[in-house]
Amino acid sequence: MSNWFASVLTVQPEMFPGPLGMSLSGKALAERKWSLETVDMRAFSTTRYGSIDDTPAGGGPGMVMRADFVAAAVDSVARNGRPLILLSPRGVPFTQARARELAHGPGAVLVCGRYEGIDERVIEARAMQEISMGDYVLSGGELAAMALIDACVRLLPGVVGDDQSLDEESFEDGLLEYPHYTRPPSWEGRDIPSILMSGHHQRIRDWRRERAIELTKARRPDMWDAYLKRAPKTKH
Amino acid sequence: MSNWFASVLTVQPEMFPGPLGMSLSGKALAERKWSLETVDMRAFSTTRYGSIDDTPAGGGPGMVMRADFVAAAVDSVARNGRPLILLSPRGVPFTQARARELAHGPGAVLVCGRYEGIDERVIEARAMQEISMGDYVLSGGELAAMALIDACVRLLPGVVGDDQSLDEESFEDGLLEYPHYTRPPSWEGRDIPSILMSGHHQRIRDWRRERAIELTKARRPDMWDAYLKRAPKTKH
Repeated sequence: MSNWFASVLTVQPEMFPGPLGMSLSGKALAERKWSLETVDMRAFSTTRYGSIDDTPAGGGPGMVMRADFVAAAVDSVARNGRPLILLSPRGVPFTQARARELAHGPGAVLVCGRYEGIDERVIEARAMQEISMGDYVLSGGELAAMALIDACVRLLPGVVGDDQSLDEESFEDGLLEYPHYTRPPSWEGRDIPSILMSGHHQRIRDWRRERAIELTKARRPDMWDAYLKRAPKTKH
Repeated sequence: MSNWFASVLTVQPEMFPGPLGMSLSGKALAERKWSLETVDMRAFSTTRYGSIDDTPAGGGPGMVMRADFVAAAVDSVARNGRPLILLSPRGVPFTQARARELAHGPGAVLVCGRYEGIDERVIEARAMQEISMGDYVLSGGELAAMALIDACVRLLPGVVGDDQSLDEESFEDGLLEYPHYTRPPSWEGRDIPSILMSGHHQRIRDWRRERAIELTKARRPDMWDAYLKRAPKTKH
């Protein structure tokens, strides 16, 4: 039994569990393979209207979450060895390797930014790790937190039925995943590649690897470069 | 009034609108600044139990979504000039530039993969654009579709109150965003940088730009390289 535990600090606690309460992650949540706590950051405001943001120092658009209120919310959570992560487009890009690492740990404490951002002093003072889910801007960190949690939860023992699925998917060997086919054998004049119907397991493995390499070269030259650097002795 | 229209093809229609029905995107949805349709792909199965997946040709773990059923679901949607996008970790990485482009168009038709993947033939036959939200694997395309929609919707006219917010954020000028500060001026012995309290608008702008450059160099050398290539005449 895994005790993976996610705490989410947000001004939109009603968004959770939401999609995380359904499908694969929802089933795992119901089976107590992981657990989820949401903390409403607005509860830590001492202002009259419960707001936790204020205008940016030095001027500019938008609102900034106050260091004191965010810190109070963070300090209310028992960390128990879990990393403190701020979802932010300024962060280090999240990767499958990081998902594996987090899934092997006790869980994560996730702070969801809203408004323009969060006062830099609380990021520094509480040593938050800033993580980005991609090079785009969301209206808040909540969907990013959900994606991070989902990526980790599916790697917990027993969540995905067949562990082999996890080993062969994109990023696990530094390549994009090969193409898949299933019934019917012919559809709209397109046939399943005959090699896949041959029963030659080694030739099928080789064919899939070649397709994965082709696809990675074509779509993700950055990933291909990284792959070559890690495996300099493999010939292609 | 914008008519931005998202159609989401999924086997988990109950996940929608979910988080997209709350907060910024939810308010914009209620105000009809965009609209959302979900299509249950299982309704297009002709099998006895309504399943749309089958075992992979050539063997291997997991299940693959059938080309014929996915095609029937896709063909049931009126495209009206909208791009057909498959959310997939094999796809081209989504970017803020792509979000801008999509937000300026009529909307998007989004196919959410589940199981091991989708039969390659329907991706080719329907010319789906494969888009990835990051270098990690989710249990399905649904959270990725939500993130894509959220990134687009917040760029629609009038959704974010202050358009200047959108111009100054991460990625818009090829740099990560500068740090923010707000009240109180001093907190846990940490002061707001004095330059921000000076009232010198040009010096504040310069300081913020320097911080954005520092942060980008330190955290995202890839983004910094791209920035230099695009702006070769700027000195730093």
